[in-house]
Amino acid sequence: MNDALEPVVAGVDLGGTNVRVGLVTAAGSIRAFRSASFDAGRGAGPGLRRIAALVRTCLRAAGDPPLVALGIGATGPLDWCSGRIRNPYTLPGWKDVDVRGPLEAELRVPVRLENDAVAAALGEWWQGAGQGARSMAMVTFGTGIGVAVVRAGEPYRGAGEAHPEAGHFLVDPSGPRCYCGTQGCWEPLAAGPALERLAHESGDPDLAGATAADVARLDHAGHPAARRVVAAASRHAALGLVNVVAAYAPEVIVLGGGAMGAYRRRLDEMRAIVAGSQPYLPPGDTRIVEALLGDHAGVLGAGYAALRPAREVPSS
Amino acid sequence: MNDALEPVVAGVDLGGTNVRVGLVTAAGSIRAFRSASFDAGRGAGPGLRRIAALVRTCLRAAGDPPLVALGIGATGPLDWCSGRIRNPYTLPGWKDVDVRGPLEAELRVPVRLENDAVAAALGEWWQGAGQGARSMAMVTFGTGIGVAVVRAGEPYRGAGEAHPEAGHFLVDPSGPRCYCGTQGCWEPLAAGPALERLAHESGDPDLAGATAADVARLDHAGHPAARRVVAAASRHAALGLVNVVAAYAPEVIVLGGGAMGAYRRRLDEMRAIVAGSQPYLPPGDTRIVEALLGDHAGVLGAGYAALRPAREVPSS
Repeated sequence: MNDALEPVVAGVDLGGTNVRVGLVTAAGSIRAFRSASFDAGRGAGPGLRRIAALVRTCLRAAGDPPLVALGIGATGPLDWCSGRIRNPYTLPGWKDVDVRGPLEAELRVPVRLENDAVAAALGEWWQGAGQGARSMAMVTFGTGIGVAVVRAGEPYRGAGEAHPEAGHFLVDPSGPRCYCGTQGCWEPLAAGPALERLAHESGDPDLAGATAADVARLDHAGHPAARRVVAAASRHAALGLVNVVAAYAPEVIVLGGGAMGAYRRRLDEMRAIVAGSQPYLPPGDTRIVEALLGDHAGVLGAGYAALRPAREVPSS
Repeated sequence: MNDALEPVVAGVDLGGTNVRVGLVTAAGSIRAFRSASFDAGRGAGPGLRRIAALVRTCLRAAGDPPLVALGIGATGPLDWCSGRIRNPYTLPGWKDVDVRGPLEAELRVPVRLENDAVAAALGEWWQGAGQGARSMAMVTFGTGIGVAVVRAGEPYRGAGEAHPEAGHFLVDPSGPRCYCGTQGCWEPLAAGPALERLAHESGDPDLAGATAADVARLDHAGHPAARRVVAAASRHAALGLVNVVAAYAPEVIVLGGGAMGAYRRRLDEMRAIVAGSQPYLPPGDTRIVEALLGDHAGVLGAGYAALRPAREVPSS
């Protein structure tokens, strides 16, 4: 088939400061890809028009293949049923915004909204580190900690079809208070900003103002204070993974996000902490691996969601 | 219809020291019920024969209705696919025991094996406190903490179709070491024995040798040390519920088990701790209620599992 004639879906990965758009084929290859900065604070109207323009740019770059659907993985809680973004924590000004309607009107294709953690997990399950797994949890150590669970290609959903917020697992009541109200959540103990907070608290002059990436680099170079920071944060990262196993008993846990730059070299220690718990699950039942798709995971997963409309949960 | 002609399934709730057997109709009523002590240490052969004899006793008591299937909810990890009990923690001597084969040979009906926490959850979802919920978590505060999740009538299962072990959520690394290897699991902090341990540690002479039921009674009578014990344990019980919400975002959490005798009067405090976290989930999305079926939950749920063979997970 002439490539330009092969139908595609658009996958959109929408964050608070960046948006990624890709055209995805039914076989899971990416035909065009754009990453652009995104100023959520300018409001939903301009933001959605910018997304539509990026989709059109991708279509032109790919020789104008037929677009059949669009999937969008968006940061923060959302109403999966109505296609609305429900909460403005990470998209300021996007409170209760209808994402689906305007994009459907603009691009004249069905639009499916997903949480970004769910989209990344679907991407890794479809084309990445979770391929073939009957049950998979993806954990993204970024600005926060995103967790999504995929079973037989379906995301786990809770009440109101919301995805759970396992980044807010309580793991240590002596830890810092989280914005969610809980003292000792996983997220402030092990997401990227935890590395920066611990670096600051170390008082070490080399770590003054260090980013998570700086800490990772210094740890890699053998800097003792950076090593202590990474050891503490990666231990807390592993304690949360104990709870991921306790909650979901997944075949595989896929780890991604920017903080993996720091945690990568501690992966065996983290695996040992997880393996030291849960005697009920035979060792090796849950593999812990790194994500493979990087920036493409969210776009591929959003495309997957658009290609395969999720089964509705039968009413009881 | 003559009641004696209405077909029934047998539901079996098998614990380490007690076994309950009931005959359950398709509409969910119990036609006969027997509870008996059970000495798991005598081995699997005599144990399975005892179960078959109790089923026959129930059939005679109900006027010998046709038996069409048997479901058995058993304590401890098991292999749901092969019908084998996999782990002897709570059924000593029952390591890798085929439960299904001998019972099918003896009673000549299909036998389905379930975990006991899953069976109790199915029972409460079918006929008890979880009726009508699209997603439900049942938490049993007994000798351990059992957790099972039911979505649209299907139990959540992880790798190898095992049910997860959320009783082993890490909730406080400064807590006691659990037999699972983790320091600060939910189970040793909030199951029944936690009340006994805290009573012992209080040093109060009135609490010397107190059982969980004694502690509950003294707390109810206003005894200050008992009150402190129940306050501490129920706070830890609630901290684990924070993780149940973070993991599963269920519509309803059903609480059961012997320690509810102590926790019942703290339920509003426990609800407040859970409501104080998880800003992403609108308040009221997760109701926390007490179980309704008591000893009948496991029998009804095991019967439900036998009546409605679970959907197999499609291979990916």
